[in-house]
Amino acid sequence: MKMLYEGKSKIVYEGEEPNTCIIKYKDTATAGNGVKKEDLPEKGKLNAAISNIIFEYLMKNGVKTHLIKVLDETSVLVKKADIVMVEVIVRNVAAGSFSKKYGVPEGTALKNTVVEFSLKSDELGDPMINDSQITALGVATQEELDLLKSMSLRVDELMTELFAKAGIRLIDFKLEFGRVDGGEIVLCDEISPDSCRLWDAKTNEKMDKDRFRRDMGGVMEGYKDVLARLTK
Amino acid sequence: MKMLYEGKSKIVYEGEEPNTCIIKYKDTATAGNGVKKEDLPEKGKLNAAISNIIFEYLMKNGVKTHLIKVLDETSVLVKKADIVMVEVIVRNVAAGSFSKKYGVPEGTALKNTVVEFSLKSDELGDPMINDSQITALGVATQEELDLLKSMSLRVDELMTELFAKAGIRLIDFKLEFGRVDGGEIVLCDEISPDSCRLWDAKTNEKMDKDRFRRDMGGVMEGYKDVLARLTK
Repeated sequence: MKMLYEGKSKIVYEGEEPNTCIIKYKDTATAGNGVKKEDLPEKGKLNAAISNIIFEYLMKNGVKTHLIKVLDETSVLVKKADIVMVEVIVRNVAAGSFSKKYGVPEGTALKNTVVEFSLKSDELGDPMINDSQITALGVATQEELDLLKSMSLRVDELMTELFAKAGIRLIDFKLEFGRVDGGEIVLCDEISPDSCRLWDAKTNEKMDKDRFRRDMGGVMEGYKDVLARLTK
Repeated sequence: MKMLYEGKSKIVYEGEEPNTCIIKYKDTATAGNGVKKEDLPEKGKLNAAISNIIFEYLMKNGVKTHLIKVLDETSVLVKKADIVMVEVIVRNVAAGSFSKKYGVPEGTALKNTVVEFSLKSDELGDPMINDSQITALGVATQEELDLLKSMSLRVDELMTELFAKAGIRLIDFKLEFGRVDGGEIVLCDEISPDSCRLWDAKTNEKMDKDRFRRDMGGVMEGYKDVLARLTK
């Protein structure tokens, strides 16, 4: 298979059919823009399984995604997409960089769902960017940003419900989108404990990548617990 | 006079009449959130003169401001206002923190005027903040933010024209707003080479506080030139 791109936690290969790719999840965990890095056995398998459950659930509920089919425990076949160069961060509760930046304790309720954009650039550290800045730089149009926002809020609604049924609070998460052949914008990348903050609904215990970022230990145990609850 | 507040470049006193304040411009220049600090003789007088010309011009063109009247070379009488805790930054051309953060060379044209908000907090370093974050924290309502944006864009239009006539390019600037008695939102603070980037229209020479921030020398000469051109 021809490799197209190796990212921090996934490798992308060219698919056999035209306009397809194969994404293979790796076991590598990184944080702080790659400064902290470690191999966590089974992470690839766990993230693939969790992400596949979520993507299939979102698609069943009308959200367009890049997913064509699951190939094996760590690989999925997806539509080839031109990635939109902004990431979308959705926040239901204050945590992480938001808490730090605005001096709001983690766990603080928000008066409304927060939607942020960040410019995809490892070199620049994925800086936060607003609508008028994105359009001023020609990275996306306002119509595209409005679509990203409405799709992200719909994903938030659906995922909040899915996780609530699993006894998990969806605190915040990051999404990526891409334009597939024909120009349609679809949800891409992955949705997993690497890209979401997930807290136990009763104890507020962290079950996500913050266990890795903050050296809390039991990283894979958290991911396994998330998968077990989603499949129960 | 009872001092209400001493800022980095101005002192605010209680006015004689109810719901009024007296603002006195100081000669102090600061940069980098107060890390760099210096007294620049005549800065207070120059900024007061420039700001007064701009505020009077804006008011003549229908923009509501806090200004009641000019008292002397460094003091103005203003309406007492509850300052809105977000600053508005308007950008016509890439420069400063925008250029650094998004990797865009200074002087790059923008596809549209950029409007940014930053949270007023010396402690947090005035972090950039978007609409949904501001409303989520209860700092302002969306209606108020829409008003700040439309007022700021009108100010941009008017100031761009004023400076163009003086042979100066208005690159970017910062505005502050406040709620006066009765709840109306008006333009507050100052508009001067401390709060604007101003480049010579022919040579692109900097005539503003970047001369101080970047140790370019001739800081007051730049400010004097701005005032001379505005009064010609």
